[in-house]
Amino acid sequence: MSKIRVAVAGYGNVGRGVLAALKNNPDMETVGVLSRNPDRVKKSFNEVPVMQISEVDAWLEALKPDVAILCGGSKDDLPVQGPALAAKINTVDSFDNHSRIPEYFKAMDDSAKAAGHVSVISTGWDPGIFSMERVVANAFLPGSRAYGFYGLGESGGLSMGHSDALRTIPGVKDARQYTHAVTEAIEKVRRGENPQFTPGDMHTRECFVVLEEGADKDAVAETIRTMPGYFAPYKTEIHFVSQEYLDEKCSGFPHDGLVVAAGTTGSGNPAAVEYRCQWGSNPEATANVLVAHARAVVRLAKEGKSGAFTILDIPPAYFSMHSKEELLAKFM
Amino acid sequence: MSKIRVAVAGYGNVGRGVLAALKNNPDMETVGVLSRNPDRVKKSFNEVPVMQISEVDAWLEALKPDVAILCGGSKDDLPVQGPALAAKINTVDSFDNHSRIPEYFKAMDDSAKAAGHVSVISTGWDPGIFSMERVVANAFLPGSRAYGFYGLGESGGLSMGHSDALRTIPGVKDARQYTHAVTEAIEKVRRGENPQFTPGDMHTRECFVVLEEGADKDAVAETIRTMPGYFAPYKTEIHFVSQEYLDEKCSGFPHDGLVVAAGTTGSGNPAAVEYRCQWGSNPEATANVLVAHARAVVRLAKEGKSGAFTILDIPPAYFSMHSKEELLAKFM
Repeated sequence: MSKIRVAVAGYGNVGRGVLAALKNNPDMETVGVLSRNPDRVKKSFNEVPVMQISEVDAWLEALKPDVAILCGGSKDDLPVQGPALAAKINTVDSFDNHSRIPEYFKAMDDSAKAAGHVSVISTGWDPGIFSMERVVANAFLPGSRAYGFYGLGESGGLSMGHSDALRTIPGVKDARQYTHAVTEAIEKVRRGENPQFTPGDMHTRECFVVLEEGADKDAVAETIRTMPGYFAPYKTEIHFVSQEYLDEKCSGFPHDGLVVAAGTTGSGNPAAVEYRCQWGSNPEATANVLVAHARAVVRLAKEGKSGAFTILDIPPAYFSMHSKEELLAKFM
Repeated sequence: MSKIRVAVAGYGNVGRGVLAALKNNPDMETVGVLSRNPDRVKKSFNEVPVMQISEVDAWLEALKPDVAILCGGSKDDLPVQGPALAAKINTVDSFDNHSRIPEYFKAMDDSAKAAGHVSVISTGWDPGIFSMERVVANAFLPGSRAYGFYGLGESGGLSMGHSDALRTIPGVKDARQYTHAVTEAIEKVRRGENPQFTPGDMHTRECFVVLEEGADKDAVAETIRTMPGYFAPYKTEIHFVSQEYLDEKCSGFPHDGLVVAAGTTGSGNPAAVEYRCQWGSNPEATANVLVAHARAVVRLAKEGKSGAFTILDIPPAYFSMHSKEELLAKFM
């Protein structure tokens, strides 16, 4: 059987994770990397052709990919790149701006449908696996609400978005932000209380901040604690540390999370379901999920489907490299 | 929108659970109960018509169901009833004899396809949710193995099959068997060791036994401990108790379980996923899952699909009573 030919668009943390993940999926092969700056990528990576992403016809012709895994960011890259590429090839991406997913879905659906392509959007672990777990928890336990918690482990979960926000503050040289779940809030949900939470009830935030020389520590702390959306709604702990400390103790991209829902079944018996994941590398976890979805994209396309899809629209068997017979015999 | 018309075949623990669950799903209505002994059922249940299950044409005509939820047992009922009813109507069942699922799938697929019906087989929490979790864990973490553990809570999980096995022993008047997961085994899996286990490494068994008057306690204990398949491979604890104790302390059908898989992502970072469920009532949990699948059955049939399906073949959105737009906006 011929392998699925995958082009990887982007060579950031997720893109490099996808390249590594593809090696663990023997039914797929990487045919090329697409980048805005191929020369820079080539300095550290030469295993497959690296091509200019804007020269679409050139790399389509040269690489003949079945699917492109789009590893760009949700803020600036995907809203433009996604619909443009969906007109040219089957795609999968991890667009993760939750509130804009309906709008992005529409843009991708229009573009992919017009071209007869399949585009799976917004997958990874959240949105992605967690979306699926929220839907099935709600379907199997009607009346329950599914809650998401992040950073249950001791170190918490590294938030790139909040780390970036810290680095925009005048006087901050570098920073990392770890999210922590509030254990008592999880216990409330587990007890079936289906509580109303404010964001600050569910999570706290821990910041490791390196100051510029001469910066005003108190002013920076005040700016952090009062930053709307990012920190103001949360109990926030701030540690001022050296660059050496940050580089040594805050490297890597650990993250973890929990989807939990609890309620009752028919005659009032308690019922609770939980999905928990723990990742040493957040971008590599996203990458693994993207790669399994690339397999599903190709299957959907082979069936003659077109348009945008999410994980909610895909049968789980489509993610697996095992045959229907193997799944029935060994996984059911 | 008209409601999905559901006939419930069987009035045992699962059937009563399905009747209760249908009340929590406002897009569905129970149109009738089908039983081998309608007169007995009618003594305790009269909310909807109760009809003789063997008079298929009569209840199809009278009840006009969109789907029948088959709540019979996997040993004697479903292998005969399933294919016979799949020829007449869309069905969903919880056939749970794991090793015979491929064979049952084939029989149901042949029957349902020939008649143009949809039959979802072998759903509930295991097989069912756990099957789905095993497949996605394996797809998202290639190389990891997904392990199933049961009875993690203090009381363990009540096993009907093992309780029945105890009651076949001469001298045993009544009995209940609780399965317990071995915590150390779970920890091994969580550490990413992907260990080779024998059944006895993963679970222990706890028996509560009421003896017939004059029965030989030691002989019964020996028979239990050496029973092949059921108890011989396991560390087994036996408590001889009074009928009163059993009735009071061992009532209900609690069960719980865990699917856990661990491995590494691309560059060797640790990764672990777990799905955990806890049910006050095992048959009511199965019932809830069956009802959500009945919704999926009707959607698949409306698309013109036919044949047998498992949870692995169904997009998660099909289980939900929420619209595609709601799912995109609120669940992704």
